[in-house]
Amino acid sequence: MPVSDNAAIEVTGYNWVPDFAKGQVRDLRVRWALEEIGLPYKMRLMHPAKPRPEGYVREQPFEQVPVYHENGVHLFESGAILVHIGEKDERLLPRDAQGKGRAIGWVFAALNSVEPALQNLAMIAFFNKDEEWAKLRRQGAEDFARLKLKRISDWLGDKPWLEDRFTIGDIMMACVLRIVEPMGLVDTFPNLRAYLDRLVARPAFKAALDAQLADFTAAAPELVPA
Amino acid sequence: MPVSDNAAIEVTGYNWVPDFAKGQVRDLRVRWALEEIGLPYKMRLMHPAKPRPEGYVREQPFEQVPVYHENGVHLFESGAILVHIGEKDERLLPRDAQGKGRAIGWVFAALNSVEPALQNLAMIAFFNKDEEWAKLRRQGAEDFARLKLKRISDWLGDKPWLEDRFTIGDIMMACVLRIVEPMGLVDTFPNLRAYLDRLVARPAFKAALDAQLADFTAAAPELVPA
Repeated sequence: MPVSDNAAIEVTGYNWVPDFAKGQVRDLRVRWALEEIGLPYKMRLMHPAKPRPEGYVREQPFEQVPVYHENGVHLFESGAILVHIGEKDERLLPRDAQGKGRAIGWVFAALNSVEPALQNLAMIAFFNKDEEWAKLRRQGAEDFARLKLKRISDWLGDKPWLEDRFTIGDIMMACVLRIVEPMGLVDTFPNLRAYLDRLVARPAFKAALDAQLADFTAAAPELVPA
Repeated sequence: MPVSDNAAIEVTGYNWVPDFAKGQVRDLRVRWALEEIGLPYKMRLMHPAKPRPEGYVREQPFEQVPVYHENGVHLFESGAILVHIGEKDERLLPRDAQGKGRAIGWVFAALNSVEPALQNLAMIAFFNKDEEWAKLRRQGAEDFARLKLKRISDWLGDKPWLEDRFTIGDIMMACVLRIVEPMGLVDTFPNLRAYLDRLVARPAFKAALDAQLADFTAAAPELVPA
């Protein structure tokens, strides 16, 4: 089992999040990649509503998770961590320049060409839904998010993966698609629905998700002493 | 001179954009990286208001620029292209796992932790400024963008670069900061202003910018026959 107290790899995560964020926190993609290649890791858990550990801002400039530590390698940004883990094992990241560049390209595409539109819609639909600007903007934001999903759906066609084999690009795309999955947006594209189903059916995804959910053991903010 | 008709590397770009986008199109960062290491490239230019060349959607799923071709390597997403170019030359991307992972981390940070907030503000301030939702949302979007800039400013302190030396991370961060430069947002953080000045003073940046601007030779959409 990849979660191990003696692991050389340490990943930061949270020990509590609100229900809607469970299974969405960004350490999930790192756990998933490590599970795919059976590399053990241990977690350093923080409470998102409490002050970060001393000096955490020098580990992560935005004070978010995950941070990745491994024998003198200290990384932040989940995309870069996936590339680093991918460099360890061809099952995650091809070795030839074309295969590698395309896999990394899909990690960037997920995070920069797709996620901002989906995150913007999720913000409007969940966090700001009672604000006047959000009500006025909702349809436009949803149209833009659907357009991004259509681009991925068109690209995929009937292919099982974004390229000719599974890579870190699929891990990141799945994590990004899951942002709007509760809103039913993925379901409107049958091949995208099948693609996401194919990804979350992987034993490594299930193990990563179970491990993240099992770590949410702390009390909600209201119950935490100041 | 890196721009050469006989170059093995081909990059796609536009031959016309509206004035506000001049110097902002994403082939700039690719040209810049190539200029830093003196690697010749040629451009394939398209008109953004005309249909893309046949099959371009299979080169770039979002039909945007840049696409990068080089001896059987076909890449999209400017972040992935910078990583690929960085792999060629240590002056752009350190060879050790820590230095490499951090440089790639800053490319992701620029594109995923910073750019969405800045792009959202720029959209509201320029493209949607007369819409009611945009007027209501403007201040919140600007506050969020400033918070992201503050994080980068705090990280930088008095360091010349994001890490202990110049990398592709600085190239990407400079390109992202330039999105809100016309709005004066960078100027409110003196060390960020100095950082961006330091980057755009590099001869490779100037050569890349001049080359992009020189390629805007086509007519505006109104004058293009259908």
